[in-house]
Amino acid sequence: MPEPIVLYDIPSQGTAVKSWSPNTWKIRYALNIKGIPHKTVWVEYPDIEALMRKIGALPTGTNPDGSPQYTIPTIYDPNTKTVLADSALIVRYLDKTYPDTPRLIPAGTDALHAAFTQAFRSVLVEDLFPITVPATADHLPPRSEAYFRATREVLFGVPLQELSPPGPKREKHWAGLQKAFGTYAQWLQADGVDKPFFLGDKIGYADISIASYTVWIRVVLGEDSKEWMDFKTWDGGRWATYMDAFKQYEYVDVGEAAVP
Amino acid sequence: MPEPIVLYDIPSQGTAVKSWSPNTWKIRYALNIKGIPHKTVWVEYPDIEALMRKIGALPTGTNPDGSPQYTIPTIYDPNTKTVLADSALIVRYLDKTYPDTPRLIPAGTDALHAAFTQAFRSVLVEDLFPITVPATADHLPPRSEAYFRATREVLFGVPLQELSPPGPKREKHWAGLQKAFGTYAQWLQADGVDKPFFLGDKIGYADISIASYTVWIRVVLGEDSKEWMDFKTWDGGRWATYMDAFKQYEYVDVGEAAVP
Repeated sequence: MPEPIVLYDIPSQGTAVKSWSPNTWKIRYALNIKGIPHKTVWVEYPDIEALMRKIGALPTGTNPDGSPQYTIPTIYDPNTKTVLADSALIVRYLDKTYPDTPRLIPAGTDALHAAFTQAFRSVLVEDLFPITVPATADHLPPRSEAYFRATREVLFGVPLQELSPPGPKREKHWAGLQKAFGTYAQWLQADGVDKPFFLGDKIGYADISIASYTVWIRVVLGEDSKEWMDFKTWDGGRWATYMDAFKQYEYVDVGEAAVP
Repeated sequence: MPEPIVLYDIPSQGTAVKSWSPNTWKIRYALNIKGIPHKTVWVEYPDIEALMRKIGALPTGTNPDGSPQYTIPTIYDPNTKTVLADSALIVRYLDKTYPDTPRLIPAGTDALHAAFTQAFRSVLVEDLFPITVPATADHLPPRSEAYFRATREVLFGVPLQELSPPGPKREKHWAGLQKAFGTYAQWLQADGVDKPFFLGDKIGYADISIASYTVWIRVVLGEDSKEWMDFKTWDGGRWATYMDAFKQYEYVDVGEAAVP
């Protein structure tokens, strides 16, 4: 049995579960599906950069001011002494390092999965972010919330509460979100046979991506929200069924707070 | 040996080969890779709808005025008495009907290939169309040219020659096109190993899609054009090598003109 992998994650508060970030959920699902033991270290937004530098994680992008950007999810695997950031890189690493566990990006689908990430986001984010980003801000601990609002308001150019207040603007984004999931449903029926998952019968990285962004909606809007109830009816209830298949892989350990 | 499949295609004139349409090239490549005998029937743009209705092809979309839209590529397979329009549907049909030929959409990649089509187009068309659409109009026989200009100028809202005249506007689109191919190159290296094709070592439908849009550029700009010379240098020459692998599948028969 390998030693537990450390999964760095960003905590929410006042939510059904403490994990909300779609990109971190990709790794959480991957570890749970693979049955790889792991423990969570919770890191508040303003502490991410210093901690990632300290453990030797590489930046995953560039900030608007040109400085290197450090992001979570990041893992530390004590079995190989590897620190790794970026969800796609981590999943590929897990597939290679633990070959006896379910492979999430099967041989010959690497490049197609990379294209999938582009496709999946290109139909989704324009309508998703205005719904989930403000709801995320409302469910972060105070220091994270302040950091998140300040940085995201620069990105979006408006106060977050103006992105999709109740009313026609929000309804338009919600309808756009339904359309995006309708497109995913079409992809799953591309050859005339409706498949439960992108690879056919078993969950792969494409499905994990969709499920992770869906969990984000569920966690920040709440399972009892009218919108989540509506979501579960889309495409004849297929997404409710889809998410049910992920339920068994949603284990979140108590974890511990990062020591900056 | 099956009887030849009829491939309905739109002829160009004054080009190195008479076939230019990227969507028709997908089927031409597929048939050549599979080694399925076929013969071309050349259809001019204004005759497509009447001929497709006559042979019993289904519409593939809707015109801006709400009327059904009939498109080419369409095939007629005399072996199964099947008429089929839409390039993705045709490729899936060929995979199923001729299972002893190279499979272009392998089992378990249907949904990923459908997503690929979205991804591939989402990074490409904004910069591709302004380059290739005007050059296409310049290389169509008169009746097709008139039809093509009239319908495309409604779509783009400007005379086609204004889409990318020589100068900064064209250079911007050309640079955007280079960036799109750079993205494809990144996808092909997604797991850290550079692969020749999306499925690994053998050509699949994703590659055929890219090659077909690339042939469009080559046919309407010309192999001797400065832009095509430039294209061949992109990403260290990888696209020149890529297209070389398709050369053996570029057979175009003389065919015959459609009898409307």
